[in-house]
Amino acid sequence: MSEQSKENQLVFFFGGGDAEGGADLAHLLGGKGSNLAEMSSIGVPVPPGFTISTEVCRQYYENDREYPEGLHATVQEYLGRVEELMGKKFGDPEDPLLFSIRSGAPVSMPGMMDTVLNVGLNDETVQGLIKQSDDPRFSYDSYRRLVQMYGDVVKGIDGDKYEELIDKKKEEVGADRDTDLTADDWKDLVGQFKDLYKEETGETFPDDPEEQLWGGITAVFGSWNNERAVKWREINDLPHDVGTAVNVQTMVYGNMGADCATGVAFTRDPANGAKEAIGEYLPNAQGEDVVSGVRTPRPLNSYEREKSGKDLPTLEEEMPAAYEELTEVFDLLEEHYQEMQDIEFTVQNKTLYILQTRTGKRTAPAMVKIAHDLAEEGIITRKKALDRVEPKRLDQMLHPMIDPEAKEENEAIATGLGASPGAAVGQIVFESDEAEEWVEEGKDVLLVRHETSPDDIGGMNVAEGILTSRGGGTSHAAVVARGMGKPCVAGCGALNIDYDKKQVEVHGEVYEEGDWFTIDGASGEVFAGQLGMTEAKLTGEFEELMSWADQYRELGVRTNADTPKDAELAREFGAEGIGLTRTEHMFFEEERIDNVRQMILAAPDVQDLRLQKEALEDELETAQESQIEEIEEQLEKVEGELEETLPQYQQALDALLPEQRSDFEGIFEAMDGLPVTVRLLDPPLHEFLPEEEEDQKRLADRFDISLGEVQQLLRNLEEFNPMLGHRGCRMGISYPEVYEMQTRAIMEASVNVASKGVDVQPEIMIPLVGIPRELEILRERVDAVCQEVLREADQVVDYKIGTMLELPRACVRAAEIAEHAEFFSFGTNDLTQTTFGISRDDAGKFLEHYQHEGIIDKDPFAALDQNGVGELLRMGVERGRQTRKALKVGICGEHGGEPSSVKFCDEAGLDYVSCSPYRVPIARLAAAQSAIDVQEDLTSY
Amino acid sequence: MSEQSKENQLVFFFGGGDAEGGADLAHLLGGKGSNLAEMSSIGVPVPPGFTISTEVCRQYYENDREYPEGLHATVQEYLGRVEELMGKKFGDPEDPLLFSIRSGAPVSMPGMMDTVLNVGLNDETVQGLIKQSDDPRFSYDSYRRLVQMYGDVVKGIDGDKYEELIDKKKEEVGADRDTDLTADDWKDLVGQFKDLYKEETGETFPDDPEEQLWGGITAVFGSWNNERAVKWREINDLPHDVGTAVNVQTMVYGNMGADCATGVAFTRDPANGAKEAIGEYLPNAQGEDVVSGVRTPRPLNSYEREKSGKDLPTLEEEMPAAYEELTEVFDLLEEHYQEMQDIEFTVQNKTLYILQTRTGKRTAPAMVKIAHDLAEEGIITRKKALDRVEPKRLDQMLHPMIDPEAKEENEAIATGLGASPGAAVGQIVFESDEAEEWVEEGKDVLLVRHETSPDDIGGMNVAEGILTSRGGGTSHAAVVARGMGKPCVAGCGALNIDYDKKQVEVHGEVYEEGDWFTIDGASGEVFAGQLGMTEAKLTGEFEELMSWADQYRELGVRTNADTPKDAELAREFGAEGIGLTRTEHMFFEEERIDNVRQMILAAPDVQDLRLQKEALEDELETAQESQIEEIEEQLEKVEGELEETLPQYQQALDALLPEQRSDFEGIFEAMDGLPVTVRLLDPPLHEFLPEEEEDQKRLADRFDISLGEVQQLLRNLEEFNPMLGHRGCRMGISYPEVYEMQTRAIMEASVNVASKGVDVQPEIMIPLVGIPRELEILRERVDAVCQEVLREADQVVDYKIGTMLELPRACVRAAEIAEHAEFFSFGTNDLTQTTFGISRDDAGKFLEHYQHEGIIDKDPFAALDQNGVGELLRMGVERGRQTRKALKVGICGEHGGEPSSVKFCDEAGLDYVSCSPYRVPIARLAAAQSAIDVQEDLTSY
Repeated sequence: MSEQSKENQLVFFFGGGDAEGGADLAHLLGGKGSNLAEMSSIGVPVPPGFTISTEVCRQYYENDREYPEGLHATVQEYLGRVEELMGKKFGDPEDPLLFSIRSGAPVSMPGMMDTVLNVGLNDETVQGLIKQSDDPRFSYDSYRRLVQMYGDVVKGIDGDKYEELIDKKKEEVGADRDTDLTADDWKDLVGQFKDLYKEETGETFPDDPEEQLWGGITAVFGSWNNERAVKWREINDLPHDVGTAVNVQTMVYGNMGADCATGVAFTRDPANGAKEAIGEYLPNAQGEDVVSGVRTPRPLNSYEREKSGKDLPTLEEEMPAAYEELTEVFDLLEEHYQEMQDIEFTVQNKTLYILQTRTGKRTAPAMVKIAHDLAEEGIITRKKALDRVEPKRLDQMLHPMIDPEAKEENEAIATGLGASPGAAVGQIVFESDEAEEWVEEGKDVLLVRHETSPDDIGGMNVAEGILTSRGGGTSHAAVVARGMGKPCVAGCGALNIDYDKKQVEVHGEVYEEGDWFTIDGASGEVFAGQLGMTEAKLTGEFEELMSWADQYRELGVRTNADTPKDAELAREFGAEGIGLTRTEHMFFEEERIDNVRQMILAAPDVQDLRLQKEALEDELETAQESQIEEIEEQLEKVEGELEETLPQYQQALDALLPEQRSDFEGIFEAMDGLPVTVRLLDPPLHEFLPEEEEDQKRLADRFDISLGEVQQLLRNLEEFNPMLGHRGCRMGISYPEVYEMQTRAIMEASVNVASKGVDVQPEIMIPLVGIPRELEILRERVDAVCQEVLREADQVVDYKIGTMLELPRACVRAAEIAEHAEFFSFGTNDLTQTTFGISRDDAGKFLEHYQHEGIIDKDPFAALDQNGVGELLRMGVERGRQTRKALKVGICGEHGGEPSSVKFCDEAGLDYVSCSPYRVPIARLAAAQSAIDVQEDLTSY
Repeated sequence: MSEQSKENQLVFFFGGGDAEGGADLAHLLGGKGSNLAEMSSIGVPVPPGFTISTEVCRQYYENDREYPEGLHATVQEYLGRVEELMGKKFGDPEDPLLFSIRSGAPVSMPGMMDTVLNVGLNDETVQGLIKQSDDPRFSYDSYRRLVQMYGDVVKGIDGDKYEELIDKKKEEVGADRDTDLTADDWKDLVGQFKDLYKEETGETFPDDPEEQLWGGITAVFGSWNNERAVKWREINDLPHDVGTAVNVQTMVYGNMGADCATGVAFTRDPANGAKEAIGEYLPNAQGEDVVSGVRTPRPLNSYEREKSGKDLPTLEEEMPAAYEELTEVFDLLEEHYQEMQDIEFTVQNKTLYILQTRTGKRTAPAMVKIAHDLAEEGIITRKKALDRVEPKRLDQMLHPMIDPEAKEENEAIATGLGASPGAAVGQIVFESDEAEEWVEEGKDVLLVRHETSPDDIGGMNVAEGILTSRGGGTSHAAVVARGMGKPCVAGCGALNIDYDKKQVEVHGEVYEEGDWFTIDGASGEVFAGQLGMTEAKLTGEFEELMSWADQYRELGVRTNADTPKDAELAREFGAEGIGLTRTEHMFFEEERIDNVRQMILAAPDVQDLRLQKEALEDELETAQESQIEEIEEQLEKVEGELEETLPQYQQALDALLPEQRSDFEGIFEAMDGLPVTVRLLDPPLHEFLPEEEEDQKRLADRFDISLGEVQQLLRNLEEFNPMLGHRGCRMGISYPEVYEMQTRAIMEASVNVASKGVDVQPEIMIPLVGIPRELEILRERVDAVCQEVLREADQVVDYKIGTMLELPRACVRAAEIAEHAEFFSFGTNDLTQTTFGISRDDAGKFLEHYQHEGIIDKDPFAALDQNGVGELLRMGVERGRQTRKALKVGICGEHGGEPSSVKFCDEAGLDYVSCSPYRVPIARLAAAQSAIDVQEDLTSY
């Protein structure tokens, strides 16, 4: 039949391994109808029937609820074809053919329209059903359902009235549940329902199957314009003139005797992805029996039996022919839908019917394996396989996680912010010292604190995981934990920690030091007790899939790594360089923090004296002759003080130099042949000073000053909004020696490893630039040190100097900034904070509510805000490249490992994304998906 | 002479009330030459002379340092014209004509090129000078200057060598200063200088005046390419091929006898602007005598004598003809230059010569009066008068200020941030309670605190001014003080306040409670003691000038005012409405803070319970049947708790309603007929809670809870970066009742005053919107309350609902935001903070250094950053108006009163600026200047 004539066809047949329509005719057949046709046309045994097209619906409404001419005759003809196929007759008192009548619009409108089942039953034909099923209770129950649904759907009788009658009957006979009612009870109810029908409509319930059929069809077409459906279309902005199709399909039953069965199956194992069908079934049963739990379902086959450990007969053994046919259907469906399927089937008198098929849900490992295997089997292309894998779900495969079953059995006692993924089990301790002691004794601990500080590094380092009651995603705990690759739940406000009593109270429950907790650093859940864990594994299929991803993607993937260990791990995961090495984490390390603090003790004085000196020099330039002498005296005094203060400062920096150098050497060696971007010091100085008085005292003793002096310094350095304070390049401008020391360490390390044959590619990154001149000044200073080191060593090492774009102003002025930068790296964490004017640490108070209210779709700190932050990012890229065409541009915020953000970065023309080691595979896959998207439309397969 | 031939003319004459050139020939005559020509051509008696053009310089260098043909003859001819005019001869031993030879390039190159004075002196002519001046000492001093300068300039002899000879001579005769040397000493030095000349050059010093003249001319042309001049041009990016002109001008002397004098004068009084010339002179003296202080200068006229109180003879009396001529010159100059002039003059043998004229410096009040008067006198247009007034300088006229003399005599003991302009004197107290007590006793106090908090409102209210040791421009002290129009110096780190001892230590000096301090809230200076004050006055001229400004400006000017008093003041200053009423200041008022705090005590619980409720409702929607019961139970429990908590919360809000309403009534009445923009609550809740433990205790007692509970609440509300925290519309979303109460208060107040006949135009402003949906939700809620109130009152009041644009994201998404806003108001304080990523409160640590290093020109919190913040602002305006053409757009950040920012706002198409009352006149003027700029080029006058 030609396409044109199909458009004019009013009724479409399906069944018997054939169909008049298919997926391409969804606009006429609706979703359900076209799926049934599709399955049938590829030879899947669906219960046969026919679909009355949406065109009929449209004409019906256009012609004042009159059906098109000839429809009755056509339906009659198609009904005959079904009778022929099934070998049964509609209205046959011996063995009646029964139908379901269902709506099916081109777009899914779940539950909005009506359905009538068991059409064709009456007092005569029910006897035939009893004979066939040998089950009067089932037969009368089916009959009463028809009467009930027909009354409800066709005549609009209030459904509650039927339920009242059932309830009354249950009371009468002392039955608790519907299933306690007998065949006679149901039979009686059929009578009562019919009486109700008469009462409500003034008409007798139609016994004539044909009358039932047309009543049902008309009711379903009518439901297209019922109140619910109209409202639903309004809410979802759908057109009202599309219409619905009506599907008239043979009813099949799995409870017609011993040669009947019903069950569910997956075409592959959804737990691990193995190419083995699994499933459950029940002989002589209805579909709902399989899930109700009244009877124990049996395993589909030996694979399932072995896996489940249920020593029961299988369909494979009991009904080998049906099973054989089923496995053929599995292949048919997988090949056609190119996906693992989740199927409902019924065997009615030895004949297999597939009631439904849909894409099967699966675990992350199964997702990977199935995508891989389908490609290897030639069912899908590699590109399609890559597209099938959800990058986000890989996360759980890359970290140890709580055993899903254990998670289901236990309820979280509290939920905080999932600040660093992975799960951890340990005994809770509240002090870092204690954590270290306990671990030395061989215990596993979880460090539980209000917040962590640099003084907790030791404890954090030995703990299995970290749990804090305050702070957010960029709190010390969160940042350091992520850096360490250690699970962390932060800002869990429900914890009331009492350090003195060494206990924590959670919703009225008190837990003591030493109690076991389990935390999930991805979901933020906290559990009491020891939950079982599953280890992360990189299967061969996963690795192979990743290599396919690398073939297609254009976007580079680097990692954020602060240690050689992390760098190595990331390289194993496929990182092509380091996009961000944070030098401050090195500062936090225990043996160095003293030197850092010594430097900080002197730094504000040095800065202050220098400012005074500058001011005096300025004064001198414009001074009257009479003032010159006095100014010169003051200047001399200030210079004297500066000379006294500088050594302490410089000495501390000198001590840090070799330590930083060796840090960099390790990282450069691990990244041999790949670029390494090192960010110069970013956080404000006060972050390196102790918060607890006890630690402050220790610091005071160490440097032979008073506690008061330490606290005064802290007060001086304290900031109202540290996020917007004296940090990043602002500090680099104020304290040139710090950046100079770091640059020297980077370049000396480069020279050292290069002389050992390592291919070192250092990229020095200056953070938080907002004003082009900031970068101009610092670039010059940094470059001078680089040149000096290379001159001293008489060696050549290629290096780059660039900057982070993390402020709106930097994006706006990117053209000028690019004059001084060989590369840009977007720091989208800070860019998000400044663009939104939202502190990530404080956002918890309202962002949750925002998501609930639909004010934001996603947490902008998790997925890049493409409309706001993204527009500034694009502006930065465009303007930067206007100045410097070859400008290398990357992103090193945490968005670099989030799939939708990676795709955005690819489209925005970035050269690479950089993310934490564990997210590197996710970014590789997301980048491949983005490239595939661009290259071709996958739907054309 | 035609223009073309002037271009070819090599030498230009000036003097005798005529000149061959003028200001339009600066490219040929240089700056100095064209000015002399200009003055002479309008009849000002300048010492005559001639200018050798820049063209000669260019030809000189092009032709290998050869002068153009005929130059010598022309110079000879012009020299003759000067001789004729002066009635003296060059080289005449009886009465020699003497010349100065000076460089003068088209662009100013101060001090870079050379000068030779007293050209024409030799052993013979010096006798003529002695005869004429009757002053051998002066004559030989002049002679030695010629020899010295000639040797230095023409022959490049090291100037130090001359100085050494002078020093040796002084030692010889026991003289301390040059003025102690006698005529003979100088005569002797002339000989020594000539010997030195011979030694250094091998030539005899030229006695021939003509040789001196050409030597001088050639040396000055030569100095165009001396090292200093070349370098200076390089630094200043000036072309090297422009060349300099050379001015040969008659030397005149004010010390040639009793009929000679020399002096300085202003054409109007620079102190108050009165149309009265003032000045000083000395008879028979040289210019340097007037300023050296060796002789007491005499008043120019009776006006000056009266003003200065010096009972000395005046030029007016002593040399009436010269004085008469001088006053004519004043008129001539003012009419020509259209400005008050600062003049140097000399009377040589009764003949008046003007040596120099330039625009005179003046005080702010004089600036206003002179601009006004010049316009009234018809010398300049009103537009030009407006353009003449520097808006910034008006600030000091609008506040009481420290008497400038007192300020000069006293040195500041410390300097903080000038946080709220105006000056204040008072006895220092450290506690607000005490401040109130002292004021009750009739004392004037300055409140001195580390920082202020809402608990200090009482003390701040009675204090003359506020001084804090911590905090910046947006600290509580600064913001509240500005709101109160009270002087404030904030963040004065040099103060070490000891509350217990009731004293403050500043740089080692200890001041006790009760000691007097004077503060300058504009400059940030702090003085010990009571300094004299001058009161602010708005003179008639000032008012009139402002009315002219209003005629030209297109930009509206509103005010930021939180009280009826401020509103009235601003209206007096010409505000055309209120652009920002901050409702939080009303919250801080003493009698209300309790209600505010009661609300806050409950608010987080209410929010928390609501979040729980929402989460449970969400769960319920997707729950399995088996879970429903449990969820419903939990839901019931939460709803129960919410019902318990809400009354405390709602009760506090109910108590605040009438108070807020009456606030608004007062403001609306004061602004009858003008729009009033009210911003709904903006600061985070924790700002309203007490910081000091003592106050916390009081709060706990007041509400019958424990101190621990108060502190726990504070900890819960505490934020890492409050600037980026839970504030503005985010709070409005979390706590709908607060905005609803405020909206109700605004609309009820509107209805109440409208019924009294007041024309009320409320504009409700929702702060800190970054996401269009935030505004959509809040606008709907606010609008509903407005409608409700109007319905209840059965009245019509036009109101507007709009938003503040103060986040980069809001600018980027302005098109969508405008869908829900009838107006935009840019909050450029916060927009600057977020665009730069700089917290204003913390910026002090590095912005000062940034200015010193030239990283920024101006503090971006004082003058709008046009390149960065400005670009986002423009984006916001454009995108907003794309959606809503008639969108009203203003600015209410503190930039609204800063002239360059006002101009930017005008150009960016804003409808109005809004600033503090005292800055309204500044904004009016700046807006007028911007409009004038646009309308015509002022240089075409």
